[in-house]
Amino acid sequence: MIPSDHPRYRSLVARERLARYAAEGIVSLEGLSAHGRGEAFDYLLGEKTTESALFAEKIASALLLCAKSPVISVNGNTAALAADLIKDLQEKSRARVEVNLFHRTGERMEKITRLLNDHGVRVETGNAERLLPLSHDRAFCLRSGIFAADVILVPLEDGDRCQALRGMGKTVITIDLNPLSRTARSASLTIVDELTRALPNITSFCSILGRQEAELLSITVPGNRFLADAREQMKQVLSHALD
Amino acid sequence: MIPSDHPRYRSLVARERLARYAAEGIVSLEGLSAHGRGEAFDYLLGEKTTESALFAEKIASALLLCAKSPVISVNGNTAALAADLIKDLQEKSRARVEVNLFHRTGERMEKITRLLNDHGVRVETGNAERLLPLSHDRAFCLRSGIFAADVILVPLEDGDRCQALRGMGKTVITIDLNPLSRTARSASLTIVDELTRALPNITSFCSILGRQEAELLSITVPGNRFLADAREQMKQVLSHALD
Repeated sequence: MIPSDHPRYRSLVARERLARYAAEGIVSLEGLSAHGRGEAFDYLLGEKTTESALFAEKIASALLLCAKSPVISVNGNTAALAADLIKDLQEKSRARVEVNLFHRTGERMEKITRLLNDHGVRVETGNAERLLPLSHDRAFCLRSGIFAADVILVPLEDGDRCQALRGMGKTVITIDLNPLSRTARSASLTIVDELTRALPNITSFCSILGRQEAELLSITVPGNRFLADAREQMKQVLSHALD
Repeated sequence: MIPSDHPRYRSLVARERLARYAAEGIVSLEGLSAHGRGEAFDYLLGEKTTESALFAEKIASALLLCAKSPVISVNGNTAALAADLIKDLQEKSRARVEVNLFHRTGERMEKITRLLNDHGVRVETGNAERLLPLSHDRAFCLRSGIFAADVILVPLEDGDRCQALRGMGKTVITIDLNPLSRTARSASLTIVDELTRALPNITSFCSILGRQEAELLSITVPGNRFLADAREQMKQVLSHALD
């Protein structure tokens, strides 16, 4: 057990949880190193939601609320870290939830779907088809889910798939701690924040935002500003963290 | 197979190799996320050896050459990524090599020792004793190895152990991509560079450096300068990477 007063409690619990889910086959080994990369960038962000990221989260909820067919795309790391938070967001945003894996096997799809179901998430099921212009298994998605969606929230997405979805004319919202990544740069809206901090904020805004404000916010996405803000914040931490 | 002309070839090969060694029980699951953190910082470093880091590597070899009893402390990630490079460095520096693990089990100690032996590394063996002022199994080391050493090269060390070794009056050289980490800040000399780039450089300097120059360099370690240089380089990458 990690003592709850440990200064690195939150980070250590997340790491331990991912290692446990990796042993169960829910998180891929590559997912563990991806998480480590996120931890490093979060460290440089000061491990807190910046004012800029909070505004991005507000716009994200506006986009979800105003969407015709919103979908949340969930991978192994997201399911392991945030199944309960996805359930809350699904309730408030009325989005469909689809499991979509980089390292896709039938067994992992099942395990992750079961984990989400156990936390009260309603997961889209059906026959996945090769509907995205990508090589390999990353082309798979559901016709009624991601393929039909106009707005997709894809936390921790890979760069190729993000670009492919954008190329299909979809609004892609991503949560990515690396403001330099291809995903961060190609999404319609990038939230540079840690997953389990970002999701509850988006959910809260879904309850608070009125229709008019949501419509206004959803047409004024200030794209790159959030990336520039995050880079600036990281430079500040590098300059002053230890002074 | 990862194509050798892939722009991320080096990084992808390292990641794949670590995942494979994790499946074999040589690399710990925590070691995978630690590697991910390193990857993120290396990305911000531009994934190259800076002039400043190269100078730190020169000083490291001077410290090893002038030591009475130099030891290289090897963990799972280091063995997985650089067994052959450790062999070369051992040859040129005449340092002892001791396996020292954060997640220590008899089985992992054996597997890692065998991996190193297979690559021609001569590994110190014997009865490890609780000789370091640390709780848990991290206190273990060999009386003839780390305990007796005056200079220790510990790539990818944890912060507590680094501080404990310093407290025992030892000169600790670490290779750590995170210039903000406790290890980086508490070592006698921190090389902010990627392991498989740093080790061959240290080995080369061991061949090149004359006795007089080595002695001069070994008494003029400019401690924190290397950390400040690395932080500055990362700020530059954050400012200009995408411009």
